[in-house]
Amino acid sequence: MYGNYRHIFKWGDPSHEEQLKDHVVHFAKEHFGMTDADFANKHLPGFDTITLKKRPRLSKASLGALKKIVGAENVSTEDFERAYHSAGKFYLELLKLRLGVIDNPPDAVVYPRDEKDVIAIVRLCNAKRIPITPFGGHSSVTRGVEPVKGGISLDLTRHMNAVIRVNEINSTVTVQPGMFGPALEEFLNRYKAGYTCGHFPQSFEFSTVGGWAVTRGAGQASTGYGKIEDMVLSMRTVTPAGIIETKDYPAAAIGPDIDQIIIGSEGAYGVVTEITMKIRTYRPQNTSHTSFVFKDFKSAVTAMRTVMQAEFGKPHLFRISDPEETEMAFRMGGKHGGLGDKVLSLLGYKPMQRCLMFVSVEGDANYTKFVVGKIKDVASDFGALCTGAGPTKKWLEQRYSSAYLRDPLMDAGILADTLETSVSWENLNQLWSEVRDYIKARPKTVCMVHLSHIYENGANLYFTFLTPMNKGDEVRDFVQFHKGIVDTVHANHGSISHHHGVGKMLAPWMPKEHDTASIELMRAIKKHLDPKGIMNPGTLGL
Amino acid sequence: MYGNYRHIFKWGDPSHEEQLKDHVVHFAKEHFGMTDADFANKHLPGFDTITLKKRPRLSKASLGALKKIVGAENVSTEDFERAYHSAGKFYLELLKLRLGVIDNPPDAVVYPRDEKDVIAIVRLCNAKRIPITPFGGHSSVTRGVEPVKGGISLDLTRHMNAVIRVNEINSTVTVQPGMFGPALEEFLNRYKAGYTCGHFPQSFEFSTVGGWAVTRGAGQASTGYGKIEDMVLSMRTVTPAGIIETKDYPAAAIGPDIDQIIIGSEGAYGVVTEITMKIRTYRPQNTSHTSFVFKDFKSAVTAMRTVMQAEFGKPHLFRISDPEETEMAFRMGGKHGGLGDKVLSLLGYKPMQRCLMFVSVEGDANYTKFVVGKIKDVASDFGALCTGAGPTKKWLEQRYSSAYLRDPLMDAGILADTLETSVSWENLNQLWSEVRDYIKARPKTVCMVHLSHIYENGANLYFTFLTPMNKGDEVRDFVQFHKGIVDTVHANHGSISHHHGVGKMLAPWMPKEHDTASIELMRAIKKHLDPKGIMNPGTLGL
Repeated sequence: MYGNYRHIFKWGDPSHEEQLKDHVVHFAKEHFGMTDADFANKHLPGFDTITLKKRPRLSKASLGALKKIVGAENVSTEDFERAYHSAGKFYLELLKLRLGVIDNPPDAVVYPRDEKDVIAIVRLCNAKRIPITPFGGHSSVTRGVEPVKGGISLDLTRHMNAVIRVNEINSTVTVQPGMFGPALEEFLNRYKAGYTCGHFPQSFEFSTVGGWAVTRGAGQASTGYGKIEDMVLSMRTVTPAGIIETKDYPAAAIGPDIDQIIIGSEGAYGVVTEITMKIRTYRPQNTSHTSFVFKDFKSAVTAMRTVMQAEFGKPHLFRISDPEETEMAFRMGGKHGGLGDKVLSLLGYKPMQRCLMFVSVEGDANYTKFVVGKIKDVASDFGALCTGAGPTKKWLEQRYSSAYLRDPLMDAGILADTLETSVSWENLNQLWSEVRDYIKARPKTVCMVHLSHIYENGANLYFTFLTPMNKGDEVRDFVQFHKGIVDTVHANHGSISHHHGVGKMLAPWMPKEHDTASIELMRAIKKHLDPKGIMNPGTLGL
Repeated sequence: MYGNYRHIFKWGDPSHEEQLKDHVVHFAKEHFGMTDADFANKHLPGFDTITLKKRPRLSKASLGALKKIVGAENVSTEDFERAYHSAGKFYLELLKLRLGVIDNPPDAVVYPRDEKDVIAIVRLCNAKRIPITPFGGHSSVTRGVEPVKGGISLDLTRHMNAVIRVNEINSTVTVQPGMFGPALEEFLNRYKAGYTCGHFPQSFEFSTVGGWAVTRGAGQASTGYGKIEDMVLSMRTVTPAGIIETKDYPAAAIGPDIDQIIIGSEGAYGVVTEITMKIRTYRPQNTSHTSFVFKDFKSAVTAMRTVMQAEFGKPHLFRISDPEETEMAFRMGGKHGGLGDKVLSLLGYKPMQRCLMFVSVEGDANYTKFVVGKIKDVASDFGALCTGAGPTKKWLEQRYSSAYLRDPLMDAGILADTLETSVSWENLNQLWSEVRDYIKARPKTVCMVHLSHIYENGANLYFTFLTPMNKGDEVRDFVQFHKGIVDTVHANHGSISHHHGVGKMLAPWMPKEHDTASIELMRAIKKHLDPKGIMNPGTLGL
């Protein structure tokens, strides 16, 4: 493998160059005051060929021992491969790659063939105090896969990427951690009567089951199916202190829930080698969709809460965009200022006040119709206009596409990042408004917010912000801006993450997020499972 | 407080003497070969006044320090009070009390007034290495509240028994741990528009919120509302290593789930002082009920699995009785051999083959009807006869009554105990059959089984067994018989508990239930949170 920085930071196929649509370019010019030149010349394009300054620091003996375990073809110390395994998709990581900065490459990349390899590698690395950073789809936006102390990047995607078994009676699948979302879903869809994994994060195309589990990820159907912690029934995890194996009981009262210690551990406690998770019958023909426009954010949020507390069944996809995100959707969909827009305004659904809601319900055919009908009643009670299945279907068709936009936006010199939180209903409106205020205080900044994972007792808030880079001072500028956002989220009673996880990026906030006793408990677990601190050092601040 | 052993082991009001119904007496005579004399004279009635042989071992200084913290009126070293706090409701505990045996009374009983008291007590006891066993409703059937190393029993029910706050927007209640089920439910039912806690274990009348949480309990509506671990959003726990406080986020990705370490810790890690849990709108008028008779156990189980995997919504109460339990229900309901029974037999629903199913769905009025309709369709597909709402309503009316029967049964010399497990669907039928075989191998033994907590991926199995005591050798006989049941459950891939917890009773099975690494992890957490081992020693085998 070889290539330049651009090959690494690109979302998706490195040879594909995503183009910004005219609407986007038009908006950027208008809003950010950009010119054709900004779009013609890529800013920090990362075309330089990679040569790492840091030479691999593993001894010949260690490298030899690793090669003996997995075979020479499964150990690499090449610059490109090391660089490729140095970063995920956090904005700051992309920015640094564009600047040709790789602070922390692994010393080697190792591709275990099976669990036996993982056990031998963990044993070896523990004996020699070589850090191990597990590596899946590297879609992490929290510096989760950055080997801050070097050592090896343990790439699970080359070999450990298959379904181990499906249990139709239990309705479960047992999977290796390095399997990517699309491969799993395709396998399940085609398996006998057809199943679905029910877990569709925005990173679905480029994320793995192991990554979903250890980061406490959430998919776009989480309101119905739950987060990954609600889907995983059992796991096998190789830790320096031994293999932890749990059982696939549907529930039990046999002490603390060990799975819930590994889930969220982000590789800091060990390497997950096997995951048994729930599956559901695949029957997309049954799915019912609808969508609404609400007059304002508050009524949309209250309608959502009403639905979640009404006990008439739950939607799977359930999502509202706040007024600015709604406006952007109108613009980007080419609907802005058109006849429909004018009619909507006349009816009281005014620009920069109205909010879009998307709804999909999966499962039994009568059930999906029943629940959609009920949601329509609630939405109507809150003054919403039903806009039918179309907008939701359209959104679903392009559900993974917005992740592709970041590269061309950054090429044009636009800072484009996201950040998310969870919060109780009580604190949601204030958090939304305060964080927006902070973000919007930066001149010319677009701040789009949606709620997309909804619970009886609260919801997540997902912030997307676009703003011109401070050229020449991109890194410092971003770090400062970003810190202020997280601080504001925290000050307004939001969690530092709902589903992205903590990684090294949010680690500095962990002692604020948790009380001292909880942090000390996480450290004590770390000390027990990984006494030499070789597992993904720095993640979670551990 | 004073009294005899009977005052302690009785379920409910000690002055109430539950009478066995004629049907029960008749059955016992017929099945167990008992005579009127067996019912006239109570076996091991426990009428002796309690005098403990073990004197309180706390030093004057320690007692004085405890009294200084909580006030002299909240510390007791009286024999009756110590005896009262020595045991829960495990069959063996009742038997020993009837025999006048109290192996492990606490040295003192302490009633903290608030969290501040708990903090001071934990600090003091930690400094002086005095064991603390938290005590709620002492409905534990796992020796959970037995102070095997003496020390203090920390009774949370006298003072720490109130609702701290209700949050209507979040739909949550924050409760002190010593609040009993009925007090909480009554409070919620009457609070403004009316709420329900949704958690109704059989021990509801005499169990506390704290006990529910730390044991991973389950209520009779768990199929809809989940187990307690699905209901708790946050907790405060006082440990020797400090106070652990979690936040009421609806979900988060901020490391391991600390709540899921405390839930199931059964007092071995600390004292829970505050619990925030989900509540739901109280609207019993909406609840839809139905019931069915299936031709056999297998079709009833498969119908249940089909419902849980169908994705048309879930019932809250969902329960089947196996053939023997169904027969007993017919007998005890006076239906055995009647006209209805004959008609049922003619229709193919034959005694000792047929199975009763109870269904209740809560929530929105249309939803409850919709789901019940769907379940009727499934049941019909599996050859069930719908017997309407009546039997389920009747069952609900007497849902807590069977717990009262154990005392008069034991008075008559009948061993009456229960044991429960969870298991994947795949292993359920075999576990049912093997454990039944083991129990039925004991002569004259009644074995009734039901499934009452149902999941997409499996269910619990709840065994109730009645058999004549081996008089004069009651303890050894029971211990041996009971051990064989747990061994058979374990050998057939059932968990050692689905919702009763582990306590000291199942502690010997923990190293079989869990792999070594999981046990060592639980111990490491124990060592960190409770380095001197003062918290409920022996529980979970820790």
